Amino acid sequence: MIKRVGKQTICTENKPKIISTMSVVGPKEGEGPLKDYFDIILQDDTDGQKSYEKAESSIANRAINECIKKANLKEDDINYLIAGDLLNQLTASNFAVRSLSIPYIGVYGACSTMALSLGLAAMIIAGDFANYALAATSSHFSTAERQFRTPLEMGSQRSPTSQWTVTGAGAMLLGRNGNFPYISYVTTGKVKDYGESDPNNMGAAMAPAAVDTIKQHLQDTGRKPSDYDIIATGDLGKHGKEITEKLLLEYNYDIKNRYIDCGVEIYDLKKQNVNCGGSGCGCSAVVTSGYIYKNMLKGKFKRVLLVSTGALMSTTSYQQGETIPGIAHAVSIEFGGQSR
Amino acid sequence: MIKRVGKQTICTENKPKIISTMSVVGPKEGEGPLKDYFDIILQDDTDGQKSYEKAESSIANRAINECIKKANLKEDDINYLIAGDLLNQLTASNFAVRSLSIPYIGVYGACSTMALSLGLAAMIIAGDFANYALAATSSHFSTAERQFRTPLEMGSQRSPTSQWTVTGAGAMLLGRNGNFPYISYVTTGKVKDYGESDPNNMGAAMAPAAVDTIKQHLQDTGRKPSDYDIIATGDLGKHGKEITEKLLLEYNYDIKNRYIDCGVEIYDLKKQNVNCGGSGCGCSAVVTSGYIYKNMLKGKFKRVLLVSTGALMSTTSYQQGETIPGIAHAVSIEFGGQSR
Repeated sequence: MIKRVGKQTICTENKPKIISTMSVVGPKEGEGPLKDYFDIILQDDTDGQKSYEKAESSIANRAINECIKKANLKEDDINYLIAGDLLNQLTASNFAVRSLSIPYIGVYGACSTMALSLGLAAMIIAGDFANYALAATSSHFSTAERQFRTPLEMGSQRSPTSQWTVTGAGAMLLGRNGNFPYISYVTTGKVKDYGESDPNNMGAAMAPAAVDTIKQHLQDTGRKPSDYDIIATGDLGKHGKEITEKLLLEYNYDIKNRYIDCGVEIYDLKKQNVNCGGSGCGCSAVVTSGYIYKNMLKGKFKRVLLVSTGALMSTTSYQQGETIPGIAHAVSIEFGGQSR
Repeated sequence: MIKRVGKQTICTENKPKIISTMSVVGPKEGEGPLKDYFDIILQDDTDGQKSYEKAESSIANRAINECIKKANLKEDDINYLIAGDLLNQLTASNFAVRSLSIPYIGVYGACSTMALSLGLAAMIIAGDFANYALAATSSHFSTAERQFRTPLEMGSQRSPTSQWTVTGAGAMLLGRNGNFPYISYVTTGKVKDYGESDPNNMGAAMAPAAVDTIKQHLQDTGRKPSDYDIIATGDLGKHGKEITEKLLLEYNYDIKNRYIDCGVEIYDLKKQNVNCGGSGCGCSAVVTSGYIYKNMLKGKFKRVLLVSTGALMSTTSYQQGETIPGIAHAVSIEFGGQSR
């Protein structure tokens, strides 16, 4: 009766389908290696708005609206919209949603928000509470930089372990029917804090959470890493990715041959001056909505484990000497039969 | 098959039970008219911590832990913890949860967060995804004041329409069995923005959202206001309460004889210098966990509609000239047979 396996994972009986996705990215992301997978590439990262914050809301709004249109549905058909972002009090999402007449659930998991919102949307469909539920997240380099770090005008030097917040919004619309990639399992993460306190090294702060959630997901489902074509962490970056791979080996999980990090994939780390790679709620959102989903439709990936990762700090917690707790949520997406 | 009624409301088949609640409040709330209903009244609003932010996390952590203990359960028994607060990046909740080994879903709905988290917890139980799910929220006068308004040390004069952020944390633990108040319906709200832009008059900004959600809930369920013993909005305050009552009359819903606002109830508005009343995520959380729940257990209230209300702005959105979007989420709680 209870739709659960193991300790932290739910299984879906009716297999919520991802019936459409939409990715909107900024110019820099549109020059990266995944450019061909994005639906909309902005020429101007202000999207014609007067502030970067308004721009982020505008981009998020576009992703949501276009995602609904792509599925040939109307706003009124959508039972729930689950969204979140990095801005204080979720204003990017709140203002993106303001013009929409859809019941709204605001969520915050820092950069883990895409998997968090997608997992909740899957539970809403799998719990028979809705016909359609939409999950969306966004981030913007210029809103994040000035909120979390320094005014852009300062032109501060960036540390080698720093990451570049993705300007982009991703939306994924779940429904009950149709032949689409579907969500089979959702593993909700726990907060993990191993004492990392450098806000310019978030990959290291989030890696233990990614390790914990991947390990727990595999234990709960009885799957092996090789049961997945792709295991994709959200935005650990180059450094956090190395840590994750290494730590998982200590638990005898070798994910090397199928492991990607959305933050590493989205930019050309050698040419695009992003240090360890991309970050932000929008990072795993657009990589999943774009690259991963489209490759699943093509049959290239049959089973993907999305593990978005978040660093749960604020400038206040940092200034008060706190360490950086991390969290990771995992969603298993499948299409076209078992991969092996 | 779909557990829905009307346009925005889900109904629960297995009726998730609220098996325990916990309310922790500050000294000022402990001097108010509801003092006898709170479980823990702090002597010191820092709770022995070095900053108000750490104090808020500490209070939230106590509410969660004591709520689990009261139900004779252990941390490990709880499948989901859904929590949120007003602080940037939800740090009050994130740090409250850090020491707990419970899968964590962070939510943000400003002061609507108690009904939002409680509604999600109910859906998680009603969707058969968990045996136990805990919803918790917190707020703190001193963290909110310095984050949203002015440094406490300034001693700014407060406007007549302003409200006083409640120092407190409430937790409600849902389970599947037992003879306890249960959740029958959850109505998830939409964002409503009627152009109010004064951050010292949040009641007016949130009232249209409360009206919309109450109206929709009654339409969806086919209920009349008189089917409820109590309709309790979250923290509209004296002014917002008047607006809500008046606007609902325009739709022919007279809620007067059963309408309370948690922000009006928690303080003595004449003596406690709080202007329009209490506010903050903690407000409806402690009033529901304390006053409402305990009166339901006693049989005094048989059907209660909790309608927590949130103002979805940030200091940045305000400084950029934005208006204040509002949202309200409703949860119907019942116990001991129909009230009429």
